[in-house]
Amino acid sequence: MKIKSKIWIESEEGILLGEGRVKLLKMIEETGSLNKASKSLKISYQKAWRMIDEMNTFPTHPIIKTQIGGSKGGGTSLTDYGKSLILIYDTINKDCWKFLDEQLEKHHLC
Amino acid sequence: MKIKSKIWIESEEGILLGEGRVKLLKMIEETGSLNKASKSLKISYQKAWRMIDEMNTFPTHPIIKTQIGGSKGGGTSLTDYGKSLILIYDTINKDCWKFLDEQLEKHHLC
Repeated sequence: MKIKSKIWIESEEGILLGEGRVKLLKMIEETGSLNKASKSLKISYQKAWRMIDEMNTFPTHPIIKTQIGGSKGGGTSLTDYGKSLILIYDTINKDCWKFLDEQLEKHHLC
Repeated sequence: MKIKSKIWIESEEGILLGEGRVKLLKMIEETGSLNKASKSLKISYQKAWRMIDEMNTFPTHPIIKTQIGGSKGGGTSLTDYGKSLILIYDTINKDCWKFLDEQLEKHHLC
């Protein structure tokens, strides 16, 4: 047997980070574009935009920055705060899976 | 900020226990009847039956026992194994929330 988990970080204003949002942020970082990221994940641009908009409204620091124009024609990327949030989420997720595996052994459910 | 989690126990054959199934088992224990339990939880009898059926197929011990007839007109109740599974699930869930709260503090996300 295995224990699986899903974790998400929320505040009173809504969900800040969950599995889907972390995937989206990682894809934005990879592609440099919200449009490309939403296409890669097969979600609509509108949905991706709403997720980002909600994430950007309530943290103390923004997660995403948008550059308009420039030599590369603009694009979307993560702020340092956004990058650190993903690292923290992934770390907590991994540590949580380890913790749950230990619980399985402790309760003799293996 | 808060970290929330959902946990479930599964094997290669499917999900054994998750939030919904634990609720159903607790309600069966309370009402002594799968029919009453499904009504209380506002799910169809068919759905409740399928959940129980899936749970009963793959653990080493059955979770549910059904009594036909008798002075109380039969009914459904949890086996000792079923009761212990719920206790273990609730314990792991509570310990997981505590663990995640600690992670939130550790990563300065409070």
